[in-house]
Amino acid sequence: VRLTVARNQDLSADLFTGVCQTGSVMSSAGGSTTRFTTLSVTRPADGITHVELNRPDKSNAMIRAFWSEMVDCFNQIAVDPRCRVVIFSGAGKLFSTGIDLMDLTSDIRQLAGDDVARVSWNLRRFITMGQETFSVIEKCPKPVIAAVHGACIGEGVDLITACDIRLCTQDAWFQVKEVDIGLAADVGTLQRLPRVIGSRSLVSELALTARKMFSDEAKSCGLVSKVFADKEAMMAGALEMASEIAGRSPVAVQGTKINLIYSRDHSVPDSLDYMATWNMSMLQTHDVLKSAQAAMEKKSPADVPFSNM
Amino acid sequence: VRLTVARNQDLSADLFTGVCQTGSVMSSAGGSTTRFTTLSVTRPADGITHVELNRPDKSNAMIRAFWSEMVDCFNQIAVDPRCRVVIFSGAGKLFSTGIDLMDLTSDIRQLAGDDVARVSWNLRRFITMGQETFSVIEKCPKPVIAAVHGACIGEGVDLITACDIRLCTQDAWFQVKEVDIGLAADVGTLQRLPRVIGSRSLVSELALTARKMFSDEAKSCGLVSKVFADKEAMMAGALEMASEIAGRSPVAVQGTKINLIYSRDHSVPDSLDYMATWNMSMLQTHDVLKSAQAAMEKKSPADVPFSNM
Amino acid sequence: VRLTVARNQDLSADLFTGVCQTGSVMSSAGGSTTRFTTLSVTRPADGITHVELNRPDKSNAMIRAFWSEMVDCFNQIAVDPRCRVVIFSGAGKLFSTGIDLMDLTSDIRQLAGDDVARVSWNLRRFITMGQETFSVIEKCPKPVIAAVHGACIGEGVDLITACDIRLCTQDAWFQVKEVDIGLAADVGTLQRLPRVIGSRSLVSELALTARKMFSDEAKSCGLVSKVFADKEAMMAGALEMASEIAGRSPVAVQGTKINLIYSRDHSVPDSLDYMATWNMSMLQTHDVLKSAQAAMEKKSPADVPFSNM
Amino acid sequence: VRLTVARNQDLSADLFTGVCQTGSVMSSAGGSTTRFTTLSVTRPADGITHVELNRPDKSNAMIRAFWSEMVDCFNQIAVDPRCRVVIFSGAGKLFSTGIDLMDLTSDIRQLAGDDVARVSWNLRRFITMGQETFSVIEKCPKPVIAAVHGACIGEGVDLITACDIRLCTQDAWFQVKEVDIGLAADVGTLQRLPRVIGSRSLVSELALTARKMFSDEAKSCGLVSKVFADKEAMMAGALEMASEIAGRSPVAVQGTKINLIYSRDHSVPDSLDYMATWNMSMLQTHDVLKSAQAAMEKKSPADVPFSNM
Amino acid sequence: VRLTVARNQDLSADLFTGVCQTGSVMSSAGGSTTRFTTLSVTRPADGITHVELNRPDKSNAMIRAFWSEMVDCFNQIAVDPRCRVVIFSGAGKLFSTGIDLMDLTSDIRQLAGDDVARVSWNLRRFITMGQETFSVIEKCPKPVIAAVHGACIGEGVDLITACDIRLCTQDAWFQVKEVDIGLAADVGTLQRLPRVIGSRSLVSELALTARKMFSDEAKSCGLVSKVFADKEAMMAGALEMASEIAGRSPVAVQGTKINLIYSRDHSVPDSLDYMATWNMSMLQTHDVLKSAQAAMEKKSPADVPFSNM
Amino acid sequence: VRLTVARNQDLSADLFTGVCQTGSVMSSAGGSTTRFTTLSVTRPADGITHVELNRPDKSNAMIRAFWSEMVDCFNQIAVDPRCRVVIFSGAGKLFSTGIDLMDLTSDIRQLAGDDVARVSWNLRRFITMGQETFSVIEKCPKPVIAAVHGACIGEGVDLITACDIRLCTQDAWFQVKEVDIGLAADVGTLQRLPRVIGSRSLVSELALTARKMFSDEAKSCGLVSKVFADKEAMMAGALEMASEIAGRSPVAVQGTKINLIYSRDHSVPDSLDYMATWNMSMLQTHDVLKSAQAAMEKKSPADVPFSNM
Repeated sequence: VRLTVARNQDLSADLFTGVCQTGSVMSSAGGSTTRFTTLSVTRPADGITHVELNRPDKSNAMIRAFWSEMVDCFNQIAVDPRCRVVIFSGAGKLFSTGIDLMDLTSDIRQLAGDDVARVSWNLRRFITMGQETFSVIEKCPKPVIAAVHGACIGEGVDLITACDIRLCTQDAWFQVKEVDIGLAADVGTLQRLPRVIGSRSLVSELALTARKMFSDEAKSCGLVSKVFADKEAMMAGALEMASEIAGRSPVAVQGTKINLIYSRDHSVPDSLDYMATWNMSMLQTHDVLKSAQAAMEKKSPADVPFSNM
Repeated sequence: VRLTVARNQDLSADLFTGVCQTGSVMSSAGGSTTRFTTLSVTRPADGITHVELNRPDKSNAMIRAFWSEMVDCFNQIAVDPRCRVVIFSGAGKLFSTGIDLMDLTSDIRQLAGDDVARVSWNLRRFITMGQETFSVIEKCPKPVIAAVHGACIGEGVDLITACDIRLCTQDAWFQVKEVDIGLAADVGTLQRLPRVIGSRSLVSELALTARKMFSDEAKSCGLVSKVFADKEAMMAGALEMASEIAGRSPVAVQGTKINLIYSRDHSVPDSLDYMATWNMSMLQTHDVLKSAQAAMEKKSPADVPFSNM
Repeated sequence: VRLTVARNQDLSADLFTGVCQTGSVMSSAGGSTTRFTTLSVTRPADGITHVELNRPDKSNAMIRAFWSEMVDCFNQIAVDPRCRVVIFSGAGKLFSTGIDLMDLTSDIRQLAGDDVARVSWNLRRFITMGQETFSVIEKCPKPVIAAVHGACIGEGVDLITACDIRLCTQDAWFQVKEVDIGLAADVGTLQRLPRVIGSRSLVSELALTARKMFSDEAKSCGLVSKVFADKEAMMAGALEMASEIAGRSPVAVQGTKINLIYSRDHSVPDSLDYMATWNMSMLQTHDVLKSAQAAMEKKSPADVPFSNM
Repeated sequence: VRLTVARNQDLSADLFTGVCQTGSVMSSAGGSTTRFTTLSVTRPADGITHVELNRPDKSNAMIRAFWSEMVDCFNQIAVDPRCRVVIFSGAGKLFSTGIDLMDLTSDIRQLAGDDVARVSWNLRRFITMGQETFSVIEKCPKPVIAAVHGACIGEGVDLITACDIRLCTQDAWFQVKEVDIGLAADVGTLQRLPRVIGSRSLVSELALTARKMFSDEAKSCGLVSKVFADKEAMMAGALEMASEIAGRSPVAVQGTKINLIYSRDHSVPDSLDYMATWNMSMLQTHDVLKSAQAAMEKKSPADVPFSNM
Repeated sequence: VRLTVARNQDLSADLFTGVCQTGSVMSSAGGSTTRFTTLSVTRPADGITHVELNRPDKSNAMIRAFWSEMVDCFNQIAVDPRCRVVIFSGAGKLFSTGIDLMDLTSDIRQLAGDDVARVSWNLRRFITMGQETFSVIEKCPKPVIAAVHGACIGEGVDLITACDIRLCTQDAWFQVKEVDIGLAADVGTLQRLPRVIGSRSLVSELALTARKMFSDEAKSCGLVSKVFADKEAMMAGALEMASEIAGRSPVAVQGTKINLIYSRDHSVPDSLDYMATWNMSMLQTHDVLKSAQAAMEKKSPADVPFSNM
Repeated sequence: VRLTVARNQDLSADLFTGVCQTGSVMSSAGGSTTRFTTLSVTRPADGITHVELNRPDKSNAMIRAFWSEMVDCFNQIAVDPRCRVVIFSGAGKLFSTGIDLMDLTSDIRQLAGDDVARVSWNLRRFITMGQETFSVIEKCPKPVIAAVHGACIGEGVDLITACDIRLCTQDAWFQVKEVDIGLAADVGTLQRLPRVIGSRSLVSELALTARKMFSDEAKSCGLVSKVFADKEAMMAGALEMASEIAGRSPVAVQGTKINLIYSRDHSVPDSLDYMATWNMSMLQTHDVLKSAQAAMEKKSPADVPFSNM
């Protein structure tokens, strides 16, 4: 049985019952689900979903099945009220070597089309699908923490630049590899990386020369917020950070993510206007008074129970 | 069995085989499909798909099932290579009375949410779904001709403003009804109507007073391109216009629709840049030389066979 | 005692008491207030404010006092819960001959500044003030119906293009006069007129030649929605239209105005997103269920009492 | 000797001497210049330049030489202080049949490139050049009045939508012909036509069906401002309108054109800001006081001498 | 007597006399004014205004009076020709602990409104007022240097991100605190912080976890330009930097601030166009030739007297 | 004989022959051309063009001839298929001291114009020309590596911020000098610098105080990607980096530059759409399969021959 559910249908069910219909996918806390072939989805702690690239024997290379599974996975997470934050990492020895070259060249060779225009037409749909693979991370209102160890190459970089926070291990390295295979990176890196790190000179250099960037430079240029000694330390750190986030009001957290992304793509005045329009309802949440009360009593937000959303 | 197929999955199948997997829906030319409960989808002629609002005994009022069926229907049309143009009309005595009020109030009453913020959150997803119902028409690259007879009220107006060309009968009338039920129209009319007709004074008057506009005014203000004596004449006219479009190069036609919509939402310089980038491949179609050849031989484009796309 | 109140201060008082502090200005229904020297503000009927250009012996020519009075007047109207719609017209024989030329040339002659840059600096603030004179109409969430008789020249056109709906008499005429006095119109006409009427060729012609446009052409090009035989008929028509609007839910009406203006300045997808974010709270108004109930009982919205806002 | 001069070089000469270096092109008022092979440029009256499509025996069909001549011609007009307004028409029996099909297909056949990408790269530059052919009309600060008689087809429509004002004869007709030759119109029509006329339904119909539109519909939809009985009457009308414009302050007229185009491509608030920044210097022209003085003395602006610019 | 003066009125007086009407507020150099209850405004040196958060016994927590005083204060500074640069700091032991929680919760509890929509409406005006509190800093053309010591929490961060330059002491720390009280930061941080510092990963982490950031990280991520040993050193440094700025041409300095902010919110081509339009008058200042002369004579700009503006 | 060729003409020749007409300028690898008076253009290695500021005895100060030579030079490079990457540096002891003050003041003094408006009009064209001097670097699809040693002042900074990658020597320093000569920097720095480095506080400080920034700070803030011990080492490093880029597919490299710049000026969703439309043809290059093949065979891209473009 395929998992994919029409987004529209699913949402409407969800909206009116307040019960998540997609619960079966991520059935038990800590339990791995086997429904995806390229991803593993678990719930390491309350409110936290862990998505793992799960083809460790293939260096977590990204194949076509991965594209649609990402869309399904994040569409489900988006409407799963029990999930408040996501950790994204790679199983095995490294994060990901990016797209599977065999897969790519075979795809390109097989593209249908009676003339150049028709092949282009199909290629555009193909690229758009590829872009959606990573844009779903951004459209999902739950913050996503990328935790990278070892190699993070090509589409791996596309993936992590669509996440909200990036952590890595000392041995991590990053490579915008696309020019090496004859193409301008087209599923997100050229669009998001310049907004993610502070130096445009560095962005251009990385994208034009495909050179490797190691963890210390990734930290100093702002690609990652923190570097950990090894994967274990990083996963513990990611979990701790995720717990911090999961313990806070989901109204506050998800409103923050949505407005951060909105303001990236709009002017400051437009973004302030959107923010005011957003919060005119969101400030009516009980969470504000609960949180303020807790703060005045010197309690941590983690001690306050907030309804799911 | 529900028809809905995950867009991502479906497209990828489609792209690599060149064969439409969704053919079963619109099985035979002229034959009605029974898969949708609120829509009838037929193929009155080669290359032409006819979508009909199909709850004539309920004045084609729009219920929730309609929302997801529209998304499914137009997602399928978008990738159906045999469809080159769409006619959209209403079965029975009128086009549509818009949203079903009972349905709406019951939906609003049942919306889940522990506080105002959470109800708002769910309402936003609800409205976004409603918007998608009509935006799919615009995202579909095939031109859509709306053919309106009798009443076209509320969401009916939202629907037709998302179409590319509008025709109507002498007895047609239009009403932006939303202020009458206490809300600002939120699924497209306020966004698209001012770009569809030439007088902002008239748009404001219609939206703020909910007064009816009859066919002659709809013609003179530019909402419709043509008025026909009755439904039969209009459907014949729509079919004729659709045939004109279906007989031309789909590379030209669909590129035209996509770029017209792009340029509505972007500045002229940005739109010219996009157009040049679009046509750098599309001009390599065989259709240009075939068409130019035909033109020089004084043949009609309709006499030239163009590959599907 | 000057009336002007700092907007910030005034609003905060207002927000927390629900009582309008500015009531004294428009004290009694039908009674003219004498506080403004260039405007007359009355309340001809419940929920309707009538603002009149009130220097009839000076052809309602616009002087500097008019600029600040417009800002004060519309800032007050914006927060006056008893006002739901505005009618804007001119006292005496005509709407307005626009800026007072003596005033303008004297202003320009007296502009301070030690060099060209400093004069420019002051001129920019001067122009910005002039623009604000008319932009306040647009920032005010209550719909404004302009009712024009006789001449409407220069800044008169700037004024009416910032209104939501335009009506005029048979004898009305319009003139974008600015090129005749050696300047490009800089307080709104060049920005708003092309969005108000349907023909850019006509806009350019009017703005470049300063020719007069009479009421029939104003109607056919969409500048006005309706032409009336004379001023009396027009004022009655304006009042009737205003009553239609005042009788409807202010949540619906003001949300409609705000979103119509928003969507003029943003792309359709951005405007749909803003609309959904707007209505996620506004749909929770009691007005929807009240209105829907009334509609199902075949009552007019005018029969339903809606709280002020 | 080729006429083309590097824009940069030419301008700088011009700026510092106040003397037009390009005068030799349009040597004597009324005298035709022979420098262009596809255009005739004359000066029918003081301040007025008349540009004519000048291949009457070839139906003024547009060939490649026309592309670069248009750029040269309008770059010169842009900096020619003696030109204050332009009339654009076609010599012979009709305005233009648009692109020369032979020329186009031969161009496309000969496009160099080792693979699809490289052909696309060259095609993009080719299209961009074609777009520049018409965009120069818009970048030129002098208003351009298009005067159309007989057929105006394909690129002819691209051309006139880039003009500021459009006039036509009773026998004129317009055809967005591109879909008939297998391509989406890519040099301006899809970008500018929807901003030029009031009905999007009509725009789509014209662009998707390539049907002819005659002068009466062109007038009622706003494509043209005025229809004349025949070419002679139209040219007289165009000249009269041009004289009106040429007689007014060039500071006012050219500032008006520039700001009208700016505001088409930007939001109203952005356009108002630009306008204020524009006029902070332009209002310091002597033309304002001269014009105001004349107005107060009931003189026509035409009686006031304004310096060239 | 309240200080607030209608902006429009005040400006017009100012423009034509060249004399600052608001001088009484900041009466003597170095003398503190007592007119504001939450701010202290002094003039430590010629051309420099020092604004201090002045509720040291309340940790400079921000109450409602602060909101309107900020607007009044910066509106006055904006038009005070004697002020060329502003230093903004906090009196007492720390910069600011941000919004007063008691104040906030009491405000939210008391918000008027008959239903959710009307409460939302009032909340939106409330948030918009809050945003204006900090946006006035940005709208003021004089550069503002924020000097931060000790805690800078919540709205404190909103405030400093609206300043042009940020300095801090070694003991300073910053906290985007809003998620801790159940809300998405809505008065500027989410909109401005990502444009102020170079790492989006860090921005998200700070905003989603509310963790403290200390001065060294603030320096390395670019939030501040310089870290000083203690408050005294910082204030000296701020004063020195302010003197540098105050000594330069106000035409150059204020044009720089305005265009830096403009270009943040617009594309590079649009910003270049605006800049050219700005400087076409501003380059006519005497300051350019004076400065160039001084530079050629190897004098410092500080030795050149420039007129106020 | 002047070199400048009308861009339009030149391109069309080029497009259809696949042969570079401009070859004579950069005639022999390693050979300097003498055609420019302010620039030296050589070809140090296959695919690499070296442009040098070449008035070493005048500190490479920028004069008016430089403006037009830059436009000519980069317009030629843009269409020169043998050039795949550019290195930009300064001859002699330093990079550039920026604009020549004598030149500037003399230009400004000589500007023609009968009144302030007309002088402004000419100034605007003058500034626009100046902006084009540097914008051509950005419009050229070949990546440009700036290599800076010694002083880089004023317009020198404008120049390098328009390059893609910046390198410098240990002794390099940078100064946004414009406020020191009484003007807001108007040819690129205020528009591009904030997008090039990560700290807005630092940008404002540099632009408002004109202080010098040395190489270590330039590296840590991201202005440059790498600092070298001396000029020789830097030029070797630049050449090595240029070789890396020149060895890769020009389809990939130039598509990367164009899309990086596009995404700087547009939202992420718009940039993704453009990217997909770009790559729908570019992915059809042979370079992808060649590169993928090489990658699978563990060969370097440098070993793969790619056609010019």
